[in-house]
Amino acid sequence: MSAAKQGGLAEVIAGQTGISTVGKEGKGLSYRGYSIYDLAQNATFEETAYLLLYGRLPSAEELNAYTKELASHRLLPPAIYAVLELLPGHTHPMDVLRTAYSALASFEPEEEGRSALDITNRLIGCTSSILLYWYHYQLNGKRIDTELGNGGIAAHFLQLLHNREPEEEQHVKALDVSLILYAEHEFNASTFAARVTASTLSDYYSAITTGVGTLRGPLHGGANEAAMELIERYSDPDDAEQGLLEALQKKQLIMGFGHRVYSISDPRSDVIKTWSLTLSEQAGDRKLYDISERIEQVMRREKKLFPNLDFYSASAYHHLGIPTSLFTPVFVLSRITGWSAHILEQRAGNRIIRPSADYIGPDPQVWLPIGQR
Amino acid sequence: MSAAKQGGLAEVIAGQTGISTVGKEGKGLSYRGYSIYDLAQNATFEETAYLLLYGRLPSAEELNAYTKELASHRLLPPAIYAVLELLPGHTHPMDVLRTAYSALASFEPEEEGRSALDITNRLIGCTSSILLYWYHYQLNGKRIDTELGNGGIAAHFLQLLHNREPEEEQHVKALDVSLILYAEHEFNASTFAARVTASTLSDYYSAITTGVGTLRGPLHGGANEAAMELIERYSDPDDAEQGLLEALQKKQLIMGFGHRVYSISDPRSDVIKTWSLTLSEQAGDRKLYDISERIEQVMRREKKLFPNLDFYSASAYHHLGIPTSLFTPVFVLSRITGWSAHILEQRAGNRIIRPSADYIGPDPQVWLPIGQR
Ligand SMILES: CC(C)(COP(=O)(O)OP(=O)(O)OC[C@H]1O[C@@H](n2cnc3c(N)ncnc32)[C@H](O)[C@@H]1OP(=O)(O)O)[C@@H](O)C(=O)NCCC(=O)NCCS
Ligand SMILES: CC(C)(COP(=O)(O)OP(=O)(O)OC[C@H]1O[C@@H](n2cnc3c(N)ncnc32)[C@H](O)[C@@H]1OP(=O)(O)O)[C@@H](O)C(=O)NCCC(=O)NCCS
Repeated sequence: MSAAKQGGLAEVIAGQTGISTVGKEGKGLSYRGYSIYDLAQNATFEETAYLLLYGRLPSAEELNAYTKELASHRLLPPAIYAVLELLPGHTHPMDVLRTAYSALASFEPEEEGRSALDITNRLIGCTSSILLYWYHYQLNGKRIDTELGNGGIAAHFLQLLHNREPEEEQHVKALDVSLILYAEHEFNASTFAARVTASTLSDYYSAITTGVGTLRGPLHGGANEAAMELIERYSDPDDAEQGLLEALQKKQLIMGFGHRVYSISDPRSDVIKTWSLTLSEQAGDRKLYDISERIEQVMRREKKLFPNLDFYSASAYHHLGIPTSLFTPVFVLSRITGWSAHILEQRAGNRIIRPSADYIGPDPQVWLPIGQR
Repeated sequence: MSAAKQGGLAEVIAGQTGISTVGKEGKGLSYRGYSIYDLAQNATFEETAYLLLYGRLPSAEELNAYTKELASHRLLPPAIYAVLELLPGHTHPMDVLRTAYSALASFEPEEEGRSALDITNRLIGCTSSILLYWYHYQLNGKRIDTELGNGGIAAHFLQLLHNREPEEEQHVKALDVSLILYAEHEFNASTFAARVTASTLSDYYSAITTGVGTLRGPLHGGANEAAMELIERYSDPDDAEQGLLEALQKKQLIMGFGHRVYSISDPRSDVIKTWSLTLSEQAGDRKLYDISERIEQVMRREKKLFPNLDFYSASAYHHLGIPTSLFTPVFVLSRITGWSAHILEQRAGNRIIRPSADYIGPDPQVWLPIGQR
């Protein structure tokens, strides 16, 4: 194992945080002290976003006002719709988000009278608008009304996606829970990268586009899309077992498994697994769920690896009718909250994040004029 | 001093690199083993870019072909010109670059047949086109021909900026040297952030937009613009000395001074300082240079701090007729090479960059239903 392989800042403490606990002895996963299980059971995504961003749970009145505020941000500046129309349909939707957020900085920059927190709420409110306006325009040339719908963030997303009010209350609830689970996860790669960007005192949009670009990779947020591609490949659990054994023999990474910090299980996986089962049974189609369970068994048996949040999110999202290419963007819709809480935390106790490197390159070279090389 | 203040990964080895040495005992600053002084004296920016990206100096034939290749990338897809026309004139040019690079991913994605290195060369070739098309369009509604000019990267930039072939050979040379000095600097914040993005196996454009967004901050690349605002504020050296003493008394940071790794001097500063003097004398106007020198003296005397590359770059760029808001974008034009070399190096020995955090937040909280808060 080379030193570079040992690297990746594994187990290196890069700073302090008061936002969440990941794998801390006796603490499980909590946001601002509240267990992820309590939140998934009792809270809404809006309530969770409030908790992460303002540091405490809202009162009924505050939550009502906050939910209304988020819903007021669904209309985009005309130039952003124009930019979205210019991005061809084969664009990866993560690239669409990265470009649209970046462009929004031109119209609604961070400045006096528009704080990072204002922009955070703006982005939480308008992310579904960005994604689904682009999606419907490029798919079938339709310019949708991005302000439709009376519900919260989850209902708005499903309504814009399916062009109708969500009929199954369970679908809205399942997506809402998924958004709660995805909201925050300490110094994961995208959050840490966003903190590095924030540490130069760059603006909020720069830090957020860093988050999006970093989440996009298959070792991170992109794993939910890759997990879907995996489970869709097989016709039944036996087929999956055989395929998986072959992949493992070829030393392939199986996306949706393993974690840098967790060593026994990912506490979020149990919650989303239950929802995946509920949605599968409701749809009267357990194929993907049964394949997923078999893959889980084989991974535990062969590699002692456990599913992370991304794995059962894939089948759950499939039953919500979400196209695979939108899985990671839905992760963004939620994670903006965690990124923003960390950007604010980084700024509050800032020192530029600038590590050192171990030099393994050539010794000093004598300059040779070009004719003599 | 809080632990967060001690943080910033100061002196933490985050990985290995074979690309450059910064502040290594007896090595000075070198790219792939070649001293920065030799490069600034003898090489062109294209030659330096080749060295960084391909790992060795080019032959005359290779350099000729490479310079031609870079020059062949000056035309943009029509949709990118359209996006640039949509970004209003008050946009920060760093935001323009971030958005344009991000949007280019839609048209020329990283895929089979278009490698990260191909895209690197594309971006080196078209960055001046992006910046200056936008600049002239928003400033005076003029749609410039971005392919004009026969020279290299530095000449192309100056030609598009000033709408005429550069007359002073010294101006092209000064900008070329500045591009060499800015090209690469180990695990600085923007390069490190780009490596974190690359470490999730995200695409090349995502890593580059991370670099741009991180460089934008005033503690990093944005310091050259902030340094210009500082020196322009004063009428003469005595005025500068007085203003500076007041600023230091208020514990203000003076942009363009200090460095995370260097403790005695920044080897690049001597080179650019000489060029700043040459350009000032050529212009028959030493005001900014003399003010800068006084600021340097006061900072050494009062704070034992030395100018970094950004400080004398400000007055040098001013004499090249570069507007202050384009200073940091010029840094990008050069640093794309270093970022790209690091993205490739990160991929070659990849492990996801995911550190740990020290938890300082609330203890476990009991869930309270919303009515009871
Ligand atoms: C999450 C992840 C990036 C953590 O990376 P890490 O902490 O650097 O993990 P390591 O590479 O040290 O893993 C230890 C060993 O388990 C193996 N391993 C880890 N995850 C694996 C997976 N999903 N499939 C197969 N093998 C895996 C590694 O290959 C390594 O084996 P080695 O020691 O023989 O080289 C990694 O588990 C992974 O790539 N998972 C798949 C992508 C994914 O699901 N990401 C979402 C995370 S929420
Ligand atoms: C480059 C820089 C970010 C390095 O950060 P760092 O390694 O974390 O430096 P530190 O904050 O530990 O600096 C040590 C002390 O010098 C002071 N200091 C450093 N740079 C200073 C500057 N430019 N002006 C005034 N004081 C400065 C710090 O305030 C600190 O004082 P303290 O110990 O009383 O808090 C920092 O020097 C800086 O902010 N410089 C100005 C921005 C700049 O020019 N950036 C371009 C870098 S190429």
